Amino acid sequence: MVKQKVTINSERLKQTIEEFANYGRTKNNGVTRLALSEMDLSVRSHFQAECEDLGMTVVCDDLANMYATLPGEENNQPPIVLGSHLDSVIKGGRFDGALGVIAGLEVVRTIKERNIKPKVPIVVANITNEEGARFAPAMMSSGILSGRFDQATMMQSTDVDGITFEEALKNSGFKGGKENRLTNAGAFLELHIEQGPVLEAESLEIGVVEGVVGMVNYEIEVIGDSNHAGTTPMHLRKDALFATNNLITEIREKMCKLDDKLVYTIGQININPNIHTVIPNNVVFTIEARHEDSLTIRQVEEIIQALPESNNKENCYVKVTKQWDRDTVWFDQNIVNKVEQSTKDLGYSYKKMVSGAGHDSQFIATYIPTAMIFVPSVNGKSHSEDELTRWEDCENGVNVLLQTVLDLVT
Amino acid sequence: MVKQKVTINSERLKQTIEEFANYGRTKNNGVTRLALSEMDLSVRSHFQAECEDLGMTVVCDDLANMYATLPGEENNQPPIVLGSHLDSVIKGGRFDGALGVIAGLEVVRTIKERNIKPKVPIVVANITNEEGARFAPAMMSSGILSGRFDQATMMQSTDVDGITFEEALKNSGFKGGKENRLTNAGAFLELHIEQGPVLEAESLEIGVVEGVVGMVNYEIEVIGDSNHAGTTPMHLRKDALFATNNLITEIREKMCKLDDKLVYTIGQININPNIHTVIPNNVVFTIEARHEDSLTIRQVEEIIQALPESNNKENCYVKVTKQWDRDTVWFDQNIVNKVEQSTKDLGYSYKKMVSGAGHDSQFIATYIPTAMIFVPSVNGKSHSEDELTRWEDCENGVNVLLQTVLDLVT
Repeated sequence: MVKQKVTINSERLKQTIEEFANYGRTKNNGVTRLALSEMDLSVRSHFQAECEDLGMTVVCDDLANMYATLPGEENNQPPIVLGSHLDSVIKGGRFDGALGVIAGLEVVRTIKERNIKPKVPIVVANITNEEGARFAPAMMSSGILSGRFDQATMMQSTDVDGITFEEALKNSGFKGGKENRLTNAGAFLELHIEQGPVLEAESLEIGVVEGVVGMVNYEIEVIGDSNHAGTTPMHLRKDALFATNNLITEIREKMCKLDDKLVYTIGQININPNIHTVIPNNVVFTIEARHEDSLTIRQVEEIIQALPESNNKENCYVKVTKQWDRDTVWFDQNIVNKVEQSTKDLGYSYKKMVSGAGHDSQFIATYIPTAMIFVPSVNGKSHSEDELTRWEDCENGVNVLLQTVLDLVT
Repeated sequence: MVKQKVTINSERLKQTIEEFANYGRTKNNGVTRLALSEMDLSVRSHFQAECEDLGMTVVCDDLANMYATLPGEENNQPPIVLGSHLDSVIKGGRFDGALGVIAGLEVVRTIKERNIKPKVPIVVANITNEEGARFAPAMMSSGILSGRFDQATMMQSTDVDGITFEEALKNSGFKGGKENRLTNAGAFLELHIEQGPVLEAESLEIGVVEGVVGMVNYEIEVIGDSNHAGTTPMHLRKDALFATNNLITEIREKMCKLDDKLVYTIGQININPNIHTVIPNNVVFTIEARHEDSLTIRQVEEIIQALPESNNKENCYVKVTKQWDRDTVWFDQNIVNKVEQSTKDLGYSYKKMVSGAGHDSQFIATYIPTAMIFVPSVNGKSHSEDELTRWEDCENGVNVLLQTVLDLVT
């Protein structure tokens, strides 16, 4: 039996996205809305008012996470939760996070105006401080909710002005009781922009997200000898930069033989003394690698850990230090299947994919059946005022969310 | 006819080097004696007193260059000038520069105590601000003396406190008349530490320096695209660091086919945004290359200028900017031959070589017959508190200087 295709109001969705973006809008049409900042508190009040207009009840937990509930026919059943975050990085975009919260609102608006009676409650959630741009680390609240982060430590995280997360919570007006925390739900669904170029490059409309990839981070120090650039013959040098260059080539040659889906980045290089007439005696660089398969990550680690014994060190000494890693998180297969089926039912082109970026969903997935929906990012940009997701792509994503919710609540 | 071998007093030389090093000595036995600083002015007074004790007349020119003259039998003849510089970099060594001035003093002391009567005057010179460590550029005074640098521009060069070279000169107490400038001499001889590892590596006692190599300096900018390290597949990246890595490999592969004596250095790399989870979108690096032969330098320039058309750019854009160059300076063949003959007569092992580093001699050589003598640097170190030249090597170098002077004045 084919269900009737209820779809959202695309014009209303677009207006709502722009309304929310007015809180902290930058002159280049981006958004600066650091967690619990004045702009974040304003957009929270706006979100609360919009929810209450729909007859939803809004409560906050002790981490200022907001939960707006639309009652269902059976209110003693675990709710279906739709959510993301309203905070942003400095000069971020209008879509990262906000889209997932607004999508929840649009789903409820559509359900209400169509007079659909959900069997279980629907909750639209705004999770506090996903970005970690004001209070490190990222995904702080979901990390606490899931028990991954130590709450007392997180409370002492400070912003650039020395204000602690604990103080900001207390002064926010959005701190509620711990008893309101998200502890049980039938599903957690997060619509988010891809923040990468894959969907656009493959001309696909929807990403059905199966999980968040694991990653590993290393720091590599290359120690040579600093000497006068004019007077030291090439064969008597211990040039830490030339050694670094050889090692990066070696890393790349070996990495490209591993799985196609592996991504790795050398994002940071610091060179000493960094004077154009002096042979560098010290280079420190970072490498981070991400892949869904722990075996591939293990192969990456073997490549990196072999560097001190490389034959390409130019008589330098190489020191490898592992910084941190995280395992791949797989979402709930049943919920992922429902997202995929909704996408198919709506006729959208899609692929199943894993997220390279971190999201609150990866922590919530550890105790609630979770899945994510991705929509394309123009040029793969995010955390930038250039961040853009086309209106029709936003609309498609919210329709997939709606369809999945209807599947779960009707 | 073999001349009688007069040699210097090695114990006195060692004591004098240590006496001079007391002015600005650092706790690690180096020297900080920036041009016209309090310590430089003190060592100048000490130098002047030592010269006057020997019956020499000390005058300064308008650049505070000091000239201590021992009269000769024919005082209307051009003098033989022995000199170097007493200024140092911050945390430099005891030998760079000072050795050449002290060597002049020791030569005169030996000539006086042996009652040798020079036919022409002997001048021991201390040239102001060779290092350029307080007032850029290096070799400032010899650059002005030789007409290579514009005097008015140099006068406005400022130190970190905003004091101009002109002000420092005026307040030094060592500013004399322009009429005292070094304009004519039979020879200019500079003993200096090698500042490189060649003599030590080849177990040689003396470097007979034939000239100062030419060099060329470039800046290369690689422009890519910054994206999220977790979400951008490898084949969709424009990674400015990977492109830089390829280009450096390409440069090295081509450079190593050129002449063995070519030296080149990539001393400076600045990467943006330099965050470990962001693909670098911009890298700027410098390359400088030195060789005595302008044809080789031309080949180097062709390699660098071809980079924007390289096939290894990883879809990045490459911009090459030439910063500056200088031509190779060849010393006076007659004076170089005399230095070589003195070295042979004294039985020292030696090689003829060109200097990779710049020296006042390269500018003075443009109007006075000039040569340099090098003595070994332990581990090739200079511009460092680790700078060291063994006492016996200092002694050998001053003996070559003495022998050459005797050849010229007796």
